[in-house]
Amino acid sequence: MRIIVQKYGGTSVGDVERIKMVARKSIQALQRADGLVVVVSAMAGETNKLVDLAHQINPRADERELDMLLSTGERVTIALLAMAIQALGYQARSFTGRQVGIVTDSTYTKARIKRVECDHIMDLLRQGTIAVVAGFQGIDEKQQVTTLGRGGSDLTAVALAAALKADICEIYTDVDGVYTTDPSIEPKARRLSRISHDEMLEMASLGAKVLQARCVEFAKRHNVPLVVKSTFEEGEGTLITREDADMEQVVVAGVACSRDLARITLHEVADRPGIAARIFNAIAAKNIVVDMIIQNISEHGLTDISFTVPRSEGRRALELLAPVVEEIGAAETKLNETIARVSIVGLGIRSHQGVAAKMFEALSREGINILMISTSEIKISCVIEEAYMERAVRALHAAFELDREPTAVRARAGTAGTAR
Amino acid sequence: MRIIVQKYGGTSVGDVERIKMVARKSIQALQRADGLVVVVSAMAGETNKLVDLAHQINPRADERELDMLLSTGERVTIALLAMAIQALGYQARSFTGRQVGIVTDSTYTKARIKRVECDHIMDLLRQGTIAVVAGFQGIDEKQQVTTLGRGGSDLTAVALAAALKADICEIYTDVDGVYTTDPSIEPKARRLSRISHDEMLEMASLGAKVLQARCVEFAKRHNVPLVVKSTFEEGEGTLITREDADMEQVVVAGVACSRDLARITLHEVADRPGIAARIFNAIAAKNIVVDMIIQNISEHGLTDISFTVPRSEGRRALELLAPVVEEIGAAETKLNETIARVSIVGLGIRSHQGVAAKMFEALSREGINILMISTSEIKISCVIEEAYMERAVRALHAAFELDREPTAVRARAGTAGTAR
Repeated sequence: MRIIVQKYGGTSVGDVERIKMVARKSIQALQRADGLVVVVSAMAGETNKLVDLAHQINPRADERELDMLLSTGERVTIALLAMAIQALGYQARSFTGRQVGIVTDSTYTKARIKRVECDHIMDLLRQGTIAVVAGFQGIDEKQQVTTLGRGGSDLTAVALAAALKADICEIYTDVDGVYTTDPSIEPKARRLSRISHDEMLEMASLGAKVLQARCVEFAKRHNVPLVVKSTFEEGEGTLITREDADMEQVVVAGVACSRDLARITLHEVADRPGIAARIFNAIAAKNIVVDMIIQNISEHGLTDISFTVPRSEGRRALELLAPVVEEIGAAETKLNETIARVSIVGLGIRSHQGVAAKMFEALSREGINILMISTSEIKISCVIEEAYMERAVRALHAAFELDREPTAVRARAGTAGTAR
Repeated sequence: MRIIVQKYGGTSVGDVERIKMVARKSIQALQRADGLVVVVSAMAGETNKLVDLAHQINPRADERELDMLLSTGERVTIALLAMAIQALGYQARSFTGRQVGIVTDSTYTKARIKRVECDHIMDLLRQGTIAVVAGFQGIDEKQQVTTLGRGGSDLTAVALAAALKADICEIYTDVDGVYTTDPSIEPKARRLSRISHDEMLEMASLGAKVLQARCVEFAKRHNVPLVVKSTFEEGEGTLITREDADMEQVVVAGVACSRDLARITLHEVADRPGIAARIFNAIAAKNIVVDMIIQNISEHGLTDISFTVPRSEGRRALELLAPVVEEIGAAETKLNETIARVSIVGLGIRSHQGVAAKMFEALSREGINILMISTSEIKISCVIEEAYMERAVRALHAAFELDREPTAVRARAGTAGTAR
């Protein structure tokens, strides 16, 4: 049984005409499936309107009540979309998060999905009824309404696709796919036809905004193939799928960048066991995520430690460190809030030689100084001065020839070109 | 344990400021109760907005989907009101129809309450937490969302008051109580301080718009005392309660009237057994409610039959009758759509002599011709020409001295006057 799960975001269902268009698109999709599930968000603007009402009434609104409030937006959309599909002569039935069986923990406003109990909808799907499901929401073990936080509707779609063993999970949005880099920085950016879950995960974590990292993570863990497509234009979109042999032949799939970064440096810290633990425990205790950490070679028993945190947390991290700095006797603490990170991501990085050198060279040709470096199996990130970020992105995009379709992919796609 | 159930309608929670006001009123009520339940409607205008969206999308919207859609309005209000109460430093928790245990049948858009399973909220109430409950909605045995139709929020409040054995169910609305008659017709109309369930039931059925008949019926069946009060003004409101000995001493409690009436007359119908059954079966089959029926004394084996139906159903009733008229060979069928009904209601009607005569006399003094009469134990209704309705109401109000507080009531209330 071929099952398709589709997800349409708030802009795609933003008014009556768009809901009707989504109804038509779902019916088209039904023709190529044995069962269709459509997950929708609240109509664009509705969630903000509700949040605004809540803030007017209680700026420190209880999170359980916020979830009760915010879960209504998606319920409106599912009812309207089901009606729109029925108006075209097809069968549809709306399901709330509870009704479709999204069971979460009790962390209101950012609940985690524990399990999906959706076997009961299989009969309906088999009969050709389109299941229209409220994204972003679930129910905890105590029957309380929860919401899943940012990107929650994507997560609902992926979780349902996993539970239903769907052939594909299609994420419809206002961009037509995943690009080699941000097209607003590099107009030569090219839409990727395919990318692996791991590459997409790195891209998402490093600042690509098309999908939330936890959605991709979920898709990877349950091996759900995702397609990101535009609601408003025809096109193939980008397939995000499990890794295959061909993929590794493409050294670099994309260039990511982010300004959401601040660097903290502790100068002349005693180079003794336990010092680093003291520093990072103080920060971790307040749930601040540390990204890169660099420790210099020590001289005279003293060393410098630098690390990056989200820029919005920079000052708070500094405050948290104050007592620790006192205790360990660091000479000086500095906060740099004008840095950025550029990264190259690709499965080929782990098997090709000289990729890092090529990256550093490209940056150096532009006169860009590298402040910090970090690497993983499939990505290399450099921290640089924020002012150079866009120039760095363009230089890396050119150096790795990302504006051109890779030969391997072209061969696979059956168009001109020679396989490597 | 003294439990109070309050209900606030859509106008009372129409914007942020009004929701805050309702929060303050609930907290005041908590001081005079051991447990407080507050039932709310959707913010004024929201339900219409949703219905309008539905009609734009599908003019023949599925009723299950309509209920899914319409149930969201109350969910918004409960979350906001709970937040508003919390902002004032008190405890509150919102409950959907499902969460509070309103179990209904599966008649979407006008479901009937089958039972209320709300024992689980008793602990919360005992701890001083205000339960904020979504009116108008429930859930059927298959876990589908249902709504209760017009006046549904009042019904939710009364049903909860019955299940929780509440001391009182307070219905807050935009009028300050139940009046002896419609004050827009008779400015001398007086707010009743008390009225029996039965009288209120007749008043509601006969056109008084303060409460829906089925809400009063439910309150009567479960002996729930109701108070109707204004949200916006201080005042005692009207207590609707079980009958006591004093009440019967007031002959007439109020005058009701309605224009929502049409009369159908079948002339020269054969006066044989089974004819009336044939006529009224045809109409009942289409769920048209027949109110009064009058059959004249027969002459030469022929008779005239007149009856009233809701005015909106008049033409349809006529169409339904066409084949029957053919069959039974009536000489002529007439539809009169310019009639009205005026009624007097009071427990004392059953025990006092000459009440009907006094009514007919009052109408005749005004030169008003009576077209049809029907009586029950505690009401007398006359059908008249619509043009005379307002004059009739004023004449009856004066004839039964309804502008003056009855002596019996004054005595009971402990103010001046002599008990009868």
